[in-house]
Amino acid sequence: MGEQAYQRLMDRVRDTAVVQSIGWLLSWDQETNMPAAGASHRGRQLALVAGLVHERLTASVTKDLLAEVEAAPWLQDAPPHARANVAETRRVHERLTRVPRTLVEEVARTVPVAQHAWASARRASDFALFRPHLEKMVALKRDEARAIAGSGGDPYDALMDEFEPGARIAEVAPFLDALVDGLAPAVLAISKQGNPPLPWEGRRFPVERQRVVCGALPAAIGLSPQGSRLDVSAHPFCQRIGVGDLRITTRYDEADPRGAYFGVLHEAGHALYEQGLDPAHDGTPCGEARSLAVHESQSRLWENLVGRGRPWWRHHYPTLRAVFPEALHDVELEAFYRAINRVAPSFIRVEADEVTYNLHIAVRVRLERAIITGALAVADLPGAWNDEYRRALGLTPPDDARGCLQDVHWSCGAFGYFATYALGNVYGAQLMEAARAALPSLDDEIASGSTASLLAWLVSKVHRRGASARGARIVEDATGYAPDAAAFLRYIKQKYGPLYGF
Amino acid sequence: MGEQAYQRLMDRVRDTAVVQSIGWLLSWDQETNMPAAGASHRGRQLALVAGLVHERLTASVTKDLLAEVEAAPWLQDAPPHARANVAETRRVHERLTRVPRTLVEEVARTVPVAQHAWASARRASDFALFRPHLEKMVALKRDEARAIAGSGGDPYDALMDEFEPGARIAEVAPFLDALVDGLAPAVLAISKQGNPPLPWEGRRFPVERQRVVCGALPAAIGLSPQGSRLDVSAHPFCQRIGVGDLRITTRYDEADPRGAYFGVLHEAGHALYEQGLDPAHDGTPCGEARSLAVHESQSRLWENLVGRGRPWWRHHYPTLRAVFPEALHDVELEAFYRAINRVAPSFIRVEADEVTYNLHIAVRVRLERAIITGALAVADLPGAWNDEYRRALGLTPPDDARGCLQDVHWSCGAFGYFATYALGNVYGAQLMEAARAALPSLDDEIASGSTASLLAWLVSKVHRRGASARGARIVEDATGYAPDAAAFLRYIKQKYGPLYGF
Repeated sequence: MGEQAYQRLMDRVRDTAVVQSIGWLLSWDQETNMPAAGASHRGRQLALVAGLVHERLTASVTKDLLAEVEAAPWLQDAPPHARANVAETRRVHERLTRVPRTLVEEVARTVPVAQHAWASARRASDFALFRPHLEKMVALKRDEARAIAGSGGDPYDALMDEFEPGARIAEVAPFLDALVDGLAPAVLAISKQGNPPLPWEGRRFPVERQRVVCGALPAAIGLSPQGSRLDVSAHPFCQRIGVGDLRITTRYDEADPRGAYFGVLHEAGHALYEQGLDPAHDGTPCGEARSLAVHESQSRLWENLVGRGRPWWRHHYPTLRAVFPEALHDVELEAFYRAINRVAPSFIRVEADEVTYNLHIAVRVRLERAIITGALAVADLPGAWNDEYRRALGLTPPDDARGCLQDVHWSCGAFGYFATYALGNVYGAQLMEAARAALPSLDDEIASGSTASLLAWLVSKVHRRGASARGARIVEDATGYAPDAAAFLRYIKQKYGPLYGF
Repeated sequence: MGEQAYQRLMDRVRDTAVVQSIGWLLSWDQETNMPAAGASHRGRQLALVAGLVHERLTASVTKDLLAEVEAAPWLQDAPPHARANVAETRRVHERLTRVPRTLVEEVARTVPVAQHAWASARRASDFALFRPHLEKMVALKRDEARAIAGSGGDPYDALMDEFEPGARIAEVAPFLDALVDGLAPAVLAISKQGNPPLPWEGRRFPVERQRVVCGALPAAIGLSPQGSRLDVSAHPFCQRIGVGDLRITTRYDEADPRGAYFGVLHEAGHALYEQGLDPAHDGTPCGEARSLAVHESQSRLWENLVGRGRPWWRHHYPTLRAVFPEALHDVELEAFYRAINRVAPSFIRVEADEVTYNLHIAVRVRLERAIITGALAVADLPGAWNDEYRRALGLTPPDDARGCLQDVHWSCGAFGYFATYALGNVYGAQLMEAARAALPSLDDEIASGSTASLLAWLVSKVHRRGASARGARIVEDATGYAPDAAAFLRYIKQKYGPLYGF
C-alpha cells in the first residue's frame, strides 16, 4: 500500500517538475530572446506556471498521499532514495502550503516587469526608475517571508531556505564574518602591493575569435554538445530546461577576454552538475540539483580552482596565444597567469577576484537582511550600499549602476540568494582539496588536457546525490568533515601568498 | 445572469489562451534553439500543455457555463463580439470534447520526436528513417479524425477543420481542380518558353549583408521592432507568443537572396496579421487570428502581391543594388524584376513561384487525404509522391529529400493544413484587388516607399475581425463577394501573360 501511494506521489511530483521546467524555458527566453514589449504577457505566463506548480504541490491529494506514505510501514525499509524523495516533497509541500497561491502568482507576474525596469534603470544609472518596482517586490517578498516563517521564525531564514534548504542567518552571518576576517590579511597585503597594468592593455581580442574559443570550452570539460547550447545575454547564467537540454550564456568584451572565458567555465560548471544528475530519478528530488550553494561550488570549482590554475593553462595557453597573436605574442605564460589572477578591490561583484568576491557577498547579505526585516527602507538603499562598500572594500561606487543597481537578483525577488555564493566558494575549495587527495595525479592530467577523472569524482560524490541530503551533508560525506572556511582560506593563502607576499 | 456567466466563461478562455501561448513558445524554441537531445523532454512539456488546454476547454464547468450563456436571453442582444466569442468557444469545445485527452497528449508528445526523425531523414534523404514515425503519427491522427468526425462525417474534413474551420473536402477538392485547370494555359506556355539564366548566376550575396537588408524589412512594412524578432531556422515560420511578442524566422543562401528576402516578407506578413488583432479582445476568439487560409492570404499578399511587384522594387531596388554591387552592378531593374518573377516547374514547394505553387498544394492534398482515408499506405508514399509530381508538374524528384521528405507538416501531425495555402493565395489576390480599388494611389505610395495605407486597410477589413466569422465570410465582407479563384487567375494572367506570352 505504501509503495503504491509513493508511486502515485512521485507521479505527481514528476508531473509538477515538467510544469516547472516550462517556467525555466520562459525565464531563459526572457533573458535571451523575448522582445521588450512581451514582458507583460510573459508575466502572465510565468504567473500561470507558478500557480500550477503551487496548486499541484499543495493540493489535498498531494497532502493525503504524503500522509499515507509517511504512515506506511513500507517507508521504514524503503530504498534510501524513496525516503529522501518523501522527506524533500514534505519540505516543499510545507513551505508552499504556507504561501497563498495568489501571492505566488503575483510575485511571478511582477518579475519580468521589475526586471525590465531594473535593466532600464541600470542602463541609465537611475535608481529612481527602479525604486517603485523594488518596493513592490520587497513588499511581496516580506509577505511571503512572514507567511513561511510564521510567528516564531525569522523571515530572512524563510527566504534563504528557498535557495539553500536548512540555511539559517544565525549560522550564516558568523560564518561570513569569519570568512571576511580570515581574508583580511590577504586583502590588506594585496591593497598595499597593487598591480602592474594588464599585459594586453589597449589591445583587442576580436569577439568572433572569442566565440570560437569559448564555444569549445563546455565540451572540453565534458558537457555534451548534443545536450547543451551557449548564448549571449546581459547577465550570464545557466538554465536547465530538462534532460538533454542545458543552456548557458555569456557576454563578450573585445578589450578583455577574461569575462567571457571564465564566465563560460563558470556556467558550464553549473551545467555539468545538472548533466551529472541521475536520469533514473529525473523529475524527483533525487534527480534534482541540491541547492544553490552546491551549484555554486561546482561552477566556482571549474571557473577558479581548475580554470584559473597553472595546470589548466600549461595546456591551454599555447592555443589561446595562437588565436590572439596581436594581443598575446609577447605575453609569457607566467605573466598571463598573474593577469588572470590579479586581485584588487572593485565595485562589481561578477568581475571580482577570488579573494575579494566574498566581501561583496557579505555586503549584500547584510543589506538584504535589513531590507527584509524592515530595518532599511528601499529608498535608503543607495546610500547604505555605498556606506557598506566604503567599509568593506574601501571604495565608493561612482554611480548606482556600479553600486546597488549592478545585480539582477532583487528585481527577480531573489532575496536570500547571495549567501549561497560564499557558501559555494567554501564548498568548492573543500571539495577540490578532497578530489586532489583522492586523485594524486590530477594536476598532471589537467596539464595534459583532461579533466575526466575530476568530473567523474564530482559526479559520483556530488551530482549523483541529487537533493537526497542537505548541501552541507553532501560536502561532509564527500570530504570527511563538515564544511568550514579552512580549506578555502588555505587555498587563498597557498595561491595568492606567493603572488602578493602574505 | 447571462453576462456574468459570459464573463466567467471568457476568463476561462483567456486563461487557457495563456496556457496555449506557453505551448507556442515551446514550439518556437524547439525550432530555433533546443539542443537535439532535448526533444524527448520537450515532448513531455508539449503534452502537458496540450493536456491542460484540453482539460480547461472540455471541463464540465466550461460546458455548464457555455450552456448557461447560450440559454440566457442576454445573449440575444449582446454585442456582436460576445456572440462570436460564445459561438467560437462552443465550436472548439465540441471539437475537443470528442478527442480523448490521452490522445491529444500522445500526439503532442510524439511531435518533437517525429520532427527530429524527419529532419534526420531529410538530411540523409532516407525515407526509411522517417517511416515508422510517420506511421505512428498517421495512426494517431486517424484516430483523432475518426473521433471528431463520428460515424457520419469525413475524417479528412475533421482534420481540415482544425486549420480552416468550416472547410470541407467536397468543396475544396473541386476548387483546387478548378484552380489547377485555370492555371493550365499559363503553365503550358511557361514550360514551353523556359527561362534565361539568372542575371546574378555564380555571384555572391554575403550573408552578413543579407541579414542587414532582411532585418530592416519587417519594420519597413509596419511591424514593431519592440514587439518582434527575426531568427534563423531550417524551416521559416512565424509564431506569436503573446501581445508584444511576435517571432519570425528565415534562412540565408549566399548564392541567392530571394529565399531570405521573400521569406522575411512572407513571415512578416503573418506577423502583421497577429499585430493587427484587437488587443481589447486578447485571449478570446475575437482577438485571435481566424484561420490558416486568412493567415496565408496576408503572408502571400506581402510576399508576392506587394514584394514581387514593380512598385515595391522601384523604391527598393536602388538600395539593394548598392548593398550588393558585386552581384547586381550590371543588373537593371527590369532584369531583376523578371528574375524574381521567373516561373518554372520545380521540386520544392517553398521555392515555387506564384503560378506553379498551387500545383504543389493539389498534390499534397490528394496524397494526405488518401493517407487519412487509408487508401494510401505510408510505405507507398514515396512512389505515389513521385507519380503525382510527374503528372502535375512533369518532373520526377531525384530523391526523397526533394520529394516526399521536403515538408515538415506531416511530422507535426499537421494533416489537413496544406489546402489553406491555396485558399490563402486566392483570398490574398481577392483582397489585394479590393484594396487597390479602395486605394487608387496605392501603387504610387508603394513606389514611394510607403505601405501604411495598405496595412491600415488590411487591419480594419481583416485583422480586427479576429475569429469573429468564418474566413470566407471575412473575405466576402472585405471584397463584396464570396471567395473564388477569379481574382487570382486574373492576377496571374495580368502579371505573367506579358512576361511569358499567354
